[in-house]
Amino acid sequence: MGDMAIGSPKSSTLDASFRDLTTPAFVVDRTIVQRNCDRMREKAARSGVVFRPHVKTHKTMEIGRMQHGGEAGPITVSTLAEAECFAANGFHDITYAVPLAPEKLERVAGLAARVERLNILIDSETALHSLESFNRASGTVFDVFLKLDCGYHRAGVDPDAESSVALALAIHDSPAARYRGVLVHAGHSYHARNAAEIRSIAAEETACVSAFAANVPGVDTIRSIGSTPTASVVETFTGCDEVRPGNYVFFDAFQATIGSCDISDVAVSVLATVIGSYPDRGSLVIDAGALAMSKDSGPDHVEPQFGYGIVCDRALHPLPLKLVALSQEHGKIVGDPQEIATLPVGAQLRIIPNHSCLTAAMYDCYHVLEAGRIVGEWKPVRGW
Amino acid sequence: MGDMAIGSPKSSTLDASFRDLTTPAFVVDRTIVQRNCDRMREKAARSGVVFRPHVKTHKTMEIGRMQHGGEAGPITVSTLAEAECFAANGFHDITYAVPLAPEKLERVAGLAARVERLNILIDSETALHSLESFNRASGTVFDVFLKLDCGYHRAGVDPDAESSVALALAIHDSPAARYRGVLVHAGHSYHARNAAEIRSIAAEETACVSAFAANVPGVDTIRSIGSTPTASVVETFTGCDEVRPGNYVFFDAFQATIGSCDISDVAVSVLATVIGSYPDRGSLVIDAGALAMSKDSGPDHVEPQFGYGIVCDRALHPLPLKLVALSQEHGKIVGDPQEIATLPVGAQLRIIPNHSCLTAAMYDCYHVLEAGRIVGEWKPVRGW
Repeated sequence: MGDMAIGSPKSSTLDASFRDLTTPAFVVDRTIVQRNCDRMREKAARSGVVFRPHVKTHKTMEIGRMQHGGEAGPITVSTLAEAECFAANGFHDITYAVPLAPEKLERVAGLAARVERLNILIDSETALHSLESFNRASGTVFDVFLKLDCGYHRAGVDPDAESSVALALAIHDSPAARYRGVLVHAGHSYHARNAAEIRSIAAEETACVSAFAANVPGVDTIRSIGSTPTASVVETFTGCDEVRPGNYVFFDAFQATIGSCDISDVAVSVLATVIGSYPDRGSLVIDAGALAMSKDSGPDHVEPQFGYGIVCDRALHPLPLKLVALSQEHGKIVGDPQEIATLPVGAQLRIIPNHSCLTAAMYDCYHVLEAGRIVGEWKPVRGW
Repeated sequence: MGDMAIGSPKSSTLDASFRDLTTPAFVVDRTIVQRNCDRMREKAARSGVVFRPHVKTHKTMEIGRMQHGGEAGPITVSTLAEAECFAANGFHDITYAVPLAPEKLERVAGLAARVERLNILIDSETALHSLESFNRASGTVFDVFLKLDCGYHRAGVDPDAESSVALALAIHDSPAARYRGVLVHAGHSYHARNAAEIRSIAAEETACVSAFAANVPGVDTIRSIGSTPTASVVETFTGCDEVRPGNYVFFDAFQATIGSCDISDVAVSVLATVIGSYPDRGSLVIDAGALAMSKDSGPDHVEPQFGYGIVCDRALHPLPLKLVALSQEHGKIVGDPQEIATLPVGAQLRIIPNHSCLTAAMYDCYHVLEAGRIVGEWKPVRGW
């Protein structure tokens, strides 16, 4: 990355509104977010697929609208808290893309009644039975996707099992459900080491949903895919009907390292202050610890002991320093003693987070940077 | 741990108020917190030292008072947000135990004017000069501890260096400071593998502050120590004037594993719901992911691949299962297929967190459990 500043060209002319932020602060470069949003939206439009971006990374109404070019289009959420808040702000076509816990059915049904469509996700007969019990008591009919496991082996049914086709048909025939289709998340793309490996997983992802749909002939099946790595590396979306990437709005050190994006596409950083400087022992302490960064260990499979983010100066030039340890409110940095000698107590650094979804969630407020100035605050939805 | 339920004996008779919690939920057993608080407070009283417990683990007014037997006594904080909120609730003797960032001086001075005492921490001439500049402009005199490095090598000056004694004297003689003494945090006790190793670090901790105080003769020096492992394993506090443990109110899987406490002393757990059950592939998915657990990898140095917490049933019996992966809202559990077959979608589990400080901070609300019933909610301070 050398001497190139990451991020918008104006970041070297940061004004007082930036310098006066209380640290640790989560800074979002609006210009980069806009560019990331536009690229992905245009790719989906060009490909003729439904664009249902995930909002879990940012959890803000502002970026939710930027994802759709200024409007409240279809979205994907990871919590009912997100679903309810976005619904209250005009987003009325929502997929709740975590397998449903039956205890949440009443809340789901309540929300479904207030929006145009709320799709839910199941991957078991047990969950279908809970929908049917609820339906018998209330009459609610749910919009349901069947979750398939396309190789990540986290959630989802085996797409090659006969029982999975039987479950799809059972959903289709259930009085409690409107069968919408199949949904996959190629989370194993995070284990890739470069864009070529990601492309190979992207091909598996679409092959999985297409083969499954072919096994359920005569049934309308939306093939919904979504992971930021796979959605970022393909030229166009083929072999699917809907895409749901989320992290791409911010990207992060992890995505840049595995080849989903360039480091200059990362829109977020944590501004931190040096609170301890020890050139003689080759270390610094900053006021961004585990509660400011989250504790994601990053792309260790590509670069062992990656550290807890990429350490940069205020203008986002990477420095020969590594964030090696996080305690609650302290981040410990080690590296070049000459560099450390230039960073006394009070100096500011910016850390590009490993996993922007987790880091963003540590903050009640994001500071919005544009052309070197802080121009606003965005407040994410919290909790469940 | 076998068949013994962890926690209060009544946890096997959980009533509807518990079962109806929306998951993921952070549950605090008040009986255990009270016992942990009483033990540590009584040990400090018996030892004749000032008890200035840390509030960063829980960040609630309720437990702050429990730490002092129902009163608002001296406390230690990790953020100015904590300091300001506790001050507004009657806690007027506060140590802000993170090395001071000069940018925060105005806020510190404002708070110091509203309380009886606000101690701050520095470990550099640079920081002392920033106090002096501020003092020249405003007249503020700060209560200052010198932070010593007693072996953790995170923050603090070398206690054996002549320059450190010189810095202590410079603080003592500065018109901007009232020198209070020296403060250490034996964070390296977290690297211990058993109580004997922790005891050895505890001895180093007190030897460090005592030796340093002896090197500054004729200067009143409070010797302040604090880490939950060291404070928990010693019978009485000797060789110090003040103790500042924090994590002991909750403890966690990490502390139990390294020997700071018994597993039955852990007061907190995350209630989660099974949202995917795959006996054929030996895995479960729960609705407690990285945002519900935090992503602390736990005591890997004692038990490699410890997992992201201890998986228990609702009554806190440990199960032969391991929480092996956390994505944002999914926790992946693997283990005994027969056990997994008993846990369909909708079943509830409780996870004892690896690092309660970080897990607690993920929640806006704690659910207070007593004798099997949820009896209240506590809301922690957030942010900085």
